[in-house]
Amino acid sequence: MAATARLAARARPLARPNPGVAALVVQHGRVIARGWTQAGGRPHAEAMGLAGLAPAALAEATLYVTLEPCAHESARGPSCADLILAARPARVVIGQLDPDPRTSGAGIARLQTAGIETRLLDDPASAASLVGFLTRQRAGRPWVTLKLAISLDGCIALADGTSQWITGETARAHVHAQRARHDAILVGGGTWRADAPRLDVRLPGLETRSPQRVVLTRGAAPDGVTAISSPEAIAGLDSVLHLYVEGGAETAAAFLAADLVDELHLYTAPILIGDGRRSLGALGLASLADAHGRWHLHERRQLGSDQFTAYLRSRNS
Amino acid sequence: MAATARLAARARPLARPNPGVAALVVQHGRVIARGWTQAGGRPHAEAMGLAGLAPAALAEATLYVTLEPCAHESARGPSCADLILAARPARVVIGQLDPDPRTSGAGIARLQTAGIETRLLDDPASAASLVGFLTRQRAGRPWVTLKLAISLDGCIALADGTSQWITGETARAHVHAQRARHDAILVGGGTWRADAPRLDVRLPGLETRSPQRVVLTRGAAPDGVTAISSPEAIAGLDSVLHLYVEGGAETAAAFLAADLVDELHLYTAPILIGDGRRSLGALGLASLADAHGRWHLHERRQLGSDQFTAYLRSRNS
Repeated sequence: MAATARLAARARPLARPNPGVAALVVQHGRVIARGWTQAGGRPHAEAMGLAGLAPAALAEATLYVTLEPCAHESARGPSCADLILAARPARVVIGQLDPDPRTSGAGIARLQTAGIETRLLDDPASAASLVGFLTRQRAGRPWVTLKLAISLDGCIALADGTSQWITGETARAHVHAQRARHDAILVGGGTWRADAPRLDVRLPGLETRSPQRVVLTRGAAPDGVTAISSPEAIAGLDSVLHLYVEGGAETAAAFLAADLVDELHLYTAPILIGDGRRSLGALGLASLADAHGRWHLHERRQLGSDQFTAYLRSRNS
Repeated sequence: MAATARLAARARPLARPNPGVAALVVQHGRVIARGWTQAGGRPHAEAMGLAGLAPAALAEATLYVTLEPCAHESARGPSCADLILAARPARVVIGQLDPDPRTSGAGIARLQTAGIETRLLDDPASAASLVGFLTRQRAGRPWVTLKLAISLDGCIALADGTSQWITGETARAHVHAQRARHDAILVGGGTWRADAPRLDVRLPGLETRSPQRVVLTRGAAPDGVTAISSPEAIAGLDSVLHLYVEGGAETAAAFLAADLVDELHLYTAPILIGDGRRSLGALGLASLADAHGRWHLHERRQLGSDQFTAYLRSRNS
């Protein structure tokens, strides 16, 4: 299951706006086929994984899939439950239940009714690989990552606004790779007007992966850009499962104050600025106790001389 | 040599205001004696290490010592060079030359003249264990460590000044252990008046290690406290080899702007504050390029949910 989830996490950015699902077919302890959601969402992982396998092999094989196979046919093809019933693997192991009401449990029920041994895990790695899709289904909005590139003392620029560069080349390349993994990038209207950022992916071979651009503004949207007037309006960005918020300070604070940040990416450069521009505007905290318990460390790595730390919002749900 | 330097680093805080030196006596690959500078500075490490060893053992032994043996007698006892000449080990290996003009090379010369094989290393671990003493000798001032306890976005308090607590218990215990390792603690006059901080060591068994208290102020010194009027005046704190600067923001900025910080200790809590109090006042940077290249990562560790990072000032000297 862990290997399947890793495959899903790698395949995920291509699948947008569909969930990036992966499937492995295992016979006698050997992986005999792999599949993942293809660009644009079709074919599904199961279709790719099962294609061309001999019935004799399938009869002894287990299909691992990160998300419950869909139970609903669409104009684009049969449901995955139907495909699996036709292929008849001996066993199906599922990482996560599909919260989509057209499937939610119906996919599993169809397999079990047809006599295929089916097991549902609540696999954290599968959930992590599907976090954008699951957040969209459960909370009606994309998974939101806030990125801040700061000095050790939390500044994002000199007092005069100079911000090129706080972080080094390795950190900036990491940011471009993150952009390629997101469906949309959002900045505030002030940042858009001041910097006219390109917000594209400048990594060889990934230029075509530049995500949709969104601006938080009460004004009109510039050409080629989607405008939203409040953080809550991200609910309406239908095809966006993963949103990358790149600032500036007031936009970052607006998302934090609305509790709409799920993941925090800090790129910290080994410099001190002092009286520069702060990374965040007002969050409306009543006390220090309010600030505690919200974030836990998820990942830490050195990127050249800069430090990357990722924190996840601690939620009880 | 590395083991000797580790012993010296452990013994160092007791030796103040003398340098904390360590000595190991090794015979046929076995450590047969250890010594370190005793509380208050005497006996010296060599005296303790050589005491009571049989001449036959010493004749086959190597004495490792982190700092060149002193060549000057004092009212408190003979010089270490004299002690070594009397003990006559086969070999002496020295981690660092003593920059004290009363010794600088004279200790080595006396050993060599007397026919004892003597080798001088430029051992980085020995230098690190002596950094306060070496800085006092070479730059005429103590080694300065600046401590900041901050949120992820670089705040040290809410806008109303509330700062209890940013960091957790483990980080605060680490701070108390650092206080015990320093000869003096300094805060700004504003912090002193606003918080009347105790600045003592609140760790069981270490209460008596509470260091001298210093306030940076243009006003009068409170009772029991030394006042200095500028960062440069730390040169006059004669018995202080290691100074711990605990803030506030203007004091921290004054030391940084004067380039009088050698080591930066950041305790970073996994919280965001937004429009709180900043960790630093103005540093007078002309450009971002000015800010780069000054600090390099020295140590990183997790303290409960807080992160500790130590940076050293990169100096070309």
